[in-house]
Amino acid sequence: MSRKMDRIILASASPRRRELLEQVGIPYEVMPVNADETITETNPALAVEELSRRKALEGMKQIPADTHDTVLVIGADTVVAREGQILGKPLDKEEAFAMLNSLQGKKHQVYTGVTLAKRVSDGQIFCDTFHEETLVEVVPMTEEEIWGYIATGEPMDKAGAYGIQGAFAAYIKGIRGDFYNVVGLPVCLTVQKLRALSLKQ
Amino acid sequence: MSRKMDRIILASASPRRRELLEQVGIPYEVMPVNADETITETNPALAVEELSRRKALEGMKQIPADTHDTVLVIGADTVVAREGQILGKPLDKEEAFAMLNSLQGKKHQVYTGVTLAKRVSDGQIFCDTFHEETLVEVVPMTEEEIWGYIATGEPMDKAGAYGIQGAFAAYIKGIRGDFYNVVGLPVCLTVQKLRALSLKQ
Repeated sequence: MSRKMDRIILASASPRRRELLEQVGIPYEVMPVNADETITETNPALAVEELSRRKALEGMKQIPADTHDTVLVIGADTVVAREGQILGKPLDKEEAFAMLNSLQGKKHQVYTGVTLAKRVSDGQIFCDTFHEETLVEVVPMTEEEIWGYIATGEPMDKAGAYGIQGAFAAYIKGIRGDFYNVVGLPVCLTVQKLRALSLKQ
Repeated sequence: MSRKMDRIILASASPRRRELLEQVGIPYEVMPVNADETITETNPALAVEELSRRKALEGMKQIPADTHDTVLVIGADTVVAREGQILGKPLDKEEAFAMLNSLQGKKHQVYTGVTLAKRVSDGQIFCDTFHEETLVEVVPMTEEEIWGYIATGEPMDKAGAYGIQGAFAAYIKGIRGDFYNVVGLPVCLTVQKLRALSLKQ
């Protein structure tokens, strides 16, 4: 995968995104960024695209402009959307319960926005921003099951208060789209875009 | 998950099925079995159901009939099906190439059959056999990409010559259904069936 790739920098502290790049054999460096995550955009696809762009550009700022390497920065953001409402990470267990209770027995969407930012040879920054949507169906859950899941500790750092790659797998009836998009990065689309952008000089 | 569960025995040497039970917090014991895997059934759903039943019953045979525990044995089998043809595990790299070449750029189905076998109090064996189907779409791959993937060593012990949970993620455009069914066990359905069967005495 890495032959024609640039030096790739992941502008994210998410261990899940790191694991996904490792899984498909893409060498990368990590650069956690503190991008402003406040957003007024209510369309989930546009919201994640905008936040991914901020993260990628914030990461790019930290790289010296005179670097000789061809550098490619990945920014990504994931949200859960249900009936037009965006669910981010829960602030406490009560909010996690409310989120999970609103998802159980129904279908919802997960959006991940990705920006690949590249400093090209003349110093300018080229951005490729895109998103992927996955439909997720959760089986009906009792209140006891929801609290039992919250007790695992998994919900607190995750959009929509669940991790499809963890114990919540027991409650996922099925999905439609890219599974890894729900984990936090649309791996297949990202690899294709990375390859296309690496070839562009 | 485990409160009302019986003693659960996984009649499989598959590390992936073990990991999935661990992921959703189901305590289990492992009992690899050598069930006859020859089959004349050409319908993939019926074939995996039949093989899962053989594995579960073979596992059950190894448990003393006078055990006082309430024992529940899980047998499972996974195949890939493309245009009505069943793809099992490849015998060599050339067969892996042929399988992957037949899957790239197209959609196919993955079937996992599961049997839950339970010895009830009067010594009789009750079987619950079911299957789950997941549709998988693979992006177009070059011959170089296929050989590159084979070089990772992943294909050789996997039905259809790929692991969706490994480096092949880069080539999976999307799925429809249960992701974990493609890994080797339809986790959500299996947990529901286990719970129903554990309550049945």
